[in-house]
Amino acid sequence: MSGPPLSSTPRTRLRRAKEKGRTEREELFAVLRAGLVAHLGVTLDGHPMVVPTLYGFDDEWLYLHGSVASRSLRTDAEVCVTVTLLDSLVLARSVFEHSINYRCAIMYGLPRRLTGAEKRYGLRLMTEHVAPGQWDYARQPSRKELAATTMLALPLTEASVKVRSGPPSDGASADAELDVWAGELPLTSRWQSPVPDPAGRGTMPGVPRHIEAMVGQLLGSPCSPMRRD
Amino acid sequence: MSGPPLSSTPRTRLRRAKEKGRTEREELFAVLRAGLVAHLGVTLDGHPMVVPTLYGFDDEWLYLHGSVASRSLRTDAEVCVTVTLLDSLVLARSVFEHSINYRCAIMYGLPRRLTGAEKRYGLRLMTEHVAPGQWDYARQPSRKELAATTMLALPLTEASVKVRSGPPSDGASADAELDVWAGELPLTSRWQSPVPDPAGRGTMPGVPRHIEAMVGQLLGSPCSPMRRD
Repeated sequence: MSGPPLSSTPRTRLRRAKEKGRTEREELFAVLRAGLVAHLGVTLDGHPMVVPTLYGFDDEWLYLHGSVASRSLRTDAEVCVTVTLLDSLVLARSVFEHSINYRCAIMYGLPRRLTGAEKRYGLRLMTEHVAPGQWDYARQPSRKELAATTMLALPLTEASVKVRSGPPSDGASADAELDVWAGELPLTSRWQSPVPDPAGRGTMPGVPRHIEAMVGQLLGSPCSPMRRD
Repeated sequence: MSGPPLSSTPRTRLRRAKEKGRTEREELFAVLRAGLVAHLGVTLDGHPMVVPTLYGFDDEWLYLHGSVASRSLRTDAEVCVTVTLLDSLVLARSVFEHSINYRCAIMYGLPRRLTGAEKRYGLRLMTEHVAPGQWDYARQPSRKELAATTMLALPLTEASVKVRSGPPSDGASADAELDVWAGELPLTSRWQSPVPDPAGRGTMPGVPRHIEAMVGQLLGSPCSPMRRD
């Protein structure tokens, strides 16, 4: 994927910890590919509300969906969507330097509501992001189901990507003399063996190959281009 | 832990999917115990901003910290803090019924800024939530380090907990006749072997017992009281 560089606006320009900031568009896509759940922030009655949601994306848009009745799927005000991947605990000699290694994409903008073929396309991208192969395998949405679904598209133009990786920061400080172990405790999220719906016992086919292929895979694994530092 | 039941306000009273709502205070604590990273939502210049952050908690308060310079640690406006644990993909016969099994706590309120002994206490709770045993093991914060840290406490009075668990919803629908596999694909997040800071080679002690004890453990595992449905 390519495209223009990410915009630099007052809120995406990092004020602190600038070494963690990434400006390349490809790094945004790397986080979006690796993630599964986003946190959608909206302003409701003047106050923030943050809800988890699945997403899909293409070169230009982030796609979000939900019930038509949802209060969080608004198009009359800007939203903020954040995707975070947790890679490890960073255990330092001092409590103060404790941290986490993570990859995080924060996107801002005014979403637009999709209809017709675009709505169907967004739902396909979401489905394929979550479980590649499911769109063609499962029953595709009916007209009525599409009508009950709100699909929003957020332009991927104003975003910031932050990444922390590597050991704790106090390895060259006076604290390095302390009798304290320091390092990283990695965390991995892995897909496990599928559990068939008990309601389908006896009548269901076996687990399809595209789902079987996920088992044992790491969530957030396609991160190699992000971890070059 | 105990305390009053969670408040029911217009925004914590679930408008949809009421079967997913939990009102017991213990269920909020179960999600907070199982989680590691929260997403903090604030309103900045009229727009929402959502950032990931570590947290700690006790019976009455959620503790958040950050740099003194951080724009997201405000006490002049309400915030929303969301902790989400992802348990499995829910693969249904129809694309429309695809879902995720998750546990999610959403907390609202006006945080207050901590000082003195309370600030130190909040930092201890945070450290002990992330890596139990580290507060007494690592070097505790100096006066200067405490001054560089903002600690906020959010009252745990207005919150909602949502949980989805179990198989897809279309096992008893007409779609159950389709030749489509349906079920859950569980996701587990597990702590891996510690990676020592290369800067400490030769001079560092071995991995302490309380960190070694985390290896192989699941993040989000103490979920049994949540999963009784």
